[in-house]
Amino acid sequence: MYHYAQPLQTLIDEFSKMPGIGKKNAQRLAYYVLSLNDMEAVALAQAVIDVKEKIHLCPQCFNFTDDELCDICRADARDRNTLCVVSTPRDIASIERAREYKGSYHVLHGVISPMDGIGPDALKIKELLSRIAQQEISEVIIATNPNVEGEATALYLSRLIKPLGVKVTRLAKGVPVGGDLEFADEYTLISAIEGRQEM
Amino acid sequence: MYHYAQPLQTLIDEFSKMPGIGKKNAQRLAYYVLSLNDMEAVALAQAVIDVKEKIHLCPQCFNFTDDELCDICRADARDRNTLCVVSTPRDIASIERAREYKGSYHVLHGVISPMDGIGPDALKIKELLSRIAQQEISEVIIATNPNVEGEATALYLSRLIKPLGVKVTRLAKGVPVGGDLEFADEYTLISAIEGRQEM
Repeated sequence: MYHYAQPLQTLIDEFSKMPGIGKKNAQRLAYYVLSLNDMEAVALAQAVIDVKEKIHLCPQCFNFTDDELCDICRADARDRNTLCVVSTPRDIASIERAREYKGSYHVLHGVISPMDGIGPDALKIKELLSRIAQQEISEVIIATNPNVEGEATALYLSRLIKPLGVKVTRLAKGVPVGGDLEFADEYTLISAIEGRQEM
Repeated sequence: MYHYAQPLQTLIDEFSKMPGIGKKNAQRLAYYVLSLNDMEAVALAQAVIDVKEKIHLCPQCFNFTDDELCDICRADARDRNTLCVVSTPRDIASIERAREYKGSYHVLHGVISPMDGIGPDALKIKELLSRIAQQEISEVIIATNPNVEGEATALYLSRLIKPLGVKVTRLAKGVPVGGDLEFADEYTLISAIEGRQEM
């Protein structure tokens, strides 16, 4: 079998570990690194190191930040009485892109998944409850993914939070805007029908 | 607009520069790096640095190597009288995977492409000719890609090499093995018909 020169093979192996990067792609990326000049390669390596060294979790909402509090927790303009609960910091980026939500966030860092051995204690749920107890929260919007684990986590949270007298809501499920009914699966259609709204 | 914490954004930008990595994918890779432990992140950064520091071109065939000569140029078992000319070191890996070819290689590091301002002088053609002059080469197989630039480069090379009394061949073009005639484009079919072989 043909073997790449060792440093090249090592880099290909490192890239192969990345999500969604197959063997072929990893080779392409390694050749890309070889095509960089030294300064560009150092910049890439440094960016990898920096992200690990400088990024930590916001102690309030558990979003990623390189500051004391994250941008959203620091922003004066945000509504502090509404909390949107997401499973990952990535979901914050998605929701912020819609420019519709002006409240605060809380990142669980996962969802309850007994199959993967992830129970409620592995998530930032204790921290969520103590936030609700300490701050004046009027509504908690649960924005976990609309799949089995996300729904189970949402249900679990709503049962914990509702008794505290706080309104708990869930993102609407239905046919994607711009989508085609023909391509919607039956579960999406069931949700769309159940959640139908008066015009 | 939502901004990632700066070190995270920097890493996303670095990944976005990579071939075939879009914005979404770059975000996913950056989050992957965040999920690594410190040692793993350092290993990734180090692999990037190492590949630039340790890999250079084999002075004989211009393949990538971290040694004095590349593995193939050093191997005793390889036929030194046949040269396969490829445009990139990646192509060597592809051809080696087929385990059919036992000769040596010569990497051009590109193809002639006037549109991109790449002339013959930018490629390792001088070096190829001096190799042919110095070593006992009986056949040069031109394995540039079967596209416009690859064909033009092959034609250019064959006109230079043939007068030296060396046999020049080109990889066969035709319908891919396991492929379907229905999906073969007309140019491939033309090549397959022109290059038809007696059974």
